[in-house]
Amino acid sequence: VAASETEIIDRFFTHLGAMRGDVRLGIGDDAAIVTPPRGVELVMTTDALVEGVHFLTGAPPRSLGHRALAVNLSDVAAMGAVPSWALLALTLPEVRTDWLADFAAGFGELARLHRVNLIGGNLSRGPLTITVMLTGFLSSGTALRRSGAAADDGIYVSGTLGDAAAALALTDGKLSAATEPAQWLRRRFEFPTPRVALGQAVRGFASACIDVSDGLYADLGRILGASGCGAVIEVDALPISDALRTAAGDSAWRWALGGGEDYELCCTVPPGRSAVLAGALLDIRGSLTRIGWVRREPGIELRRGDTVIQFSHSGFEHFQT
Amino acid sequence: VAASETEIIDRFFTHLGAMRGDVRLGIGDDAAIVTPPRGVELVMTTDALVEGVHFLTGAPPRSLGHRALAVNLSDVAAMGAVPSWALLALTLPEVRTDWLADFAAGFGELARLHRVNLIGGNLSRGPLTITVMLTGFLSSGTALRRSGAAADDGIYVSGTLGDAAAALALTDGKLSAATEPAQWLRRRFEFPTPRVALGQAVRGFASACIDVSDGLYADLGRILGASGCGAVIEVDALPISDALRTAAGDSAWRWALGGGEDYELCCTVPPGRSAVLAGALLDIRGSLTRIGWVRREPGIELRRGDTVIQFSHSGFEHFQT
Repeated sequence: VAASETEIIDRFFTHLGAMRGDVRLGIGDDAAIVTPPRGVELVMTTDALVEGVHFLTGAPPRSLGHRALAVNLSDVAAMGAVPSWALLALTLPEVRTDWLADFAAGFGELARLHRVNLIGGNLSRGPLTITVMLTGFLSSGTALRRSGAAADDGIYVSGTLGDAAAALALTDGKLSAATEPAQWLRRRFEFPTPRVALGQAVRGFASACIDVSDGLYADLGRILGASGCGAVIEVDALPISDALRTAAGDSAWRWALGGGEDYELCCTVPPGRSAVLAGALLDIRGSLTRIGWVRREPGIELRRGDTVIQFSHSGFEHFQT
Repeated sequence: VAASETEIIDRFFTHLGAMRGDVRLGIGDDAAIVTPPRGVELVMTTDALVEGVHFLTGAPPRSLGHRALAVNLSDVAAMGAVPSWALLALTLPEVRTDWLADFAAGFGELARLHRVNLIGGNLSRGPLTITVMLTGFLSSGTALRRSGAAADDGIYVSGTLGDAAAALALTDGKLSAATEPAQWLRRRFEFPTPRVALGQAVRGFASACIDVSDGLYADLGRILGASGCGAVIEVDALPISDALRTAAGDSAWRWALGGGEDYELCCTVPPGRSAVLAGALLDIRGSLTRIGWVRREPGIELRRGDTVIQFSHSGFEHFQT
């Protein structure tokens, strides 16, 4: 990497993503310079993808570029913030220009869509690791946290759940499906949709929010832990894609509850605000599914009609951390 | 790492570094929340240390924690900015609490010294890689860039040069030294001193600045390239430590010119400002050594008295990128 580091950066990364007016100095100096808007708070997050841990050797680079940014966009979305500036630390075992071009295309396309400017980074030789740090902003004091849920709040999730975990299980041979649903599920894993507009839309209505990266059961548990309460989930209300239902049949709800890597949002909304929430969702053409409610008693109770059912979380911890 | 990720973070990282009043929400949610001061620009940078590339297997974790932050502090220093918030993405092959404790101690000590708050991060299983992202701030429009050098500016460097490269050469058996200078040089490599106060002090006086991470010859070349000029360096003026002189003898200047990883600052100062610069340095008890001057003709000319001497840069590119 040494000799051609500058060339690689110039060719693939210097003008990647949106060109923002608040970026005073981008890639090429000791640090980037940006001007935050007045009266905002900044949110900052970092997430890494490591070969052999978060993706398999030979994973398509366009997907990796997309996912590396998407997982960070998802964190910013869960705060209700507007994403702005990204840094990329890339460790590569070798320089392959076709790989880099595809990686940059996947990253750049998603960055432009969300007006994110890649302002700096680091390129090293080493085992393939992709680390992105993303900043966003929002009006002071308006961020969605995990800790605001209260008894009787409704629990909502975006999109469908369990698709990415099912895609991994298809690759591992632990699940099988026809070509079409298999492709659809794989695409859900490779090109997750961070719910950036949705996060901003529910800010002001939601009492707590988290992005579903480790599976709904684990991530809802984090909201409940931070908020000091518990929840009832109606298993039949979990949003499940046709593809997952086709592939997993009657156990689809287990994938939806335990499977990670979907990058949907899970939020809680006080009962008095559900009507105004519905209007806000209409405005962005977004949708949320109500899957249960918060209650005082700790723990997550799963119900199917009047029956309380059991769920063992182990076995779905694919690619954790 | 999976099961105990939260425990590791709580135990070693949640309260690492300075506790800053402008951090609204630190580690533990989807993202951190910080409030930038009014009227500032932010500088942002990231740098990674990869095992086998930037450090050897078995390197002391306290040094790694220090260096991972120091290399980023050095970039912020080179912009003349005040460091503030750090993110840490750590990829570990295994969880060893003694290693983590020492790593956190090295990181935390330097962070507290520079009032840096660790506000977030990511912990993954995988090959040992340490990636830090650091933010700092300064008054709008005052950042030191690489591009402002002009003919007749003096060229200055902080500290001494070549020590870290010599330390690596000692480890590799390419250089030998008595115990005392060897230990001193090794300490310079393991615990470099980022010149944070110095960077802020020269802001307003310096026309350009860079941190010396790849060696003076390469990094001064970047200032000259960005500024569209060249330089004359007086080889005998290069600041060289007693330890390096003992170890390297007459070729010490080659180490000072080519060796990287020192994290000193190199800046250029217009001739009319050198007196006021001296006063500013007195104020922070910092020092800079004048090693040459900028001129219109491109390239770096090395002089010893009236003789122009040659220098081959190859062979000193230890641990590049």
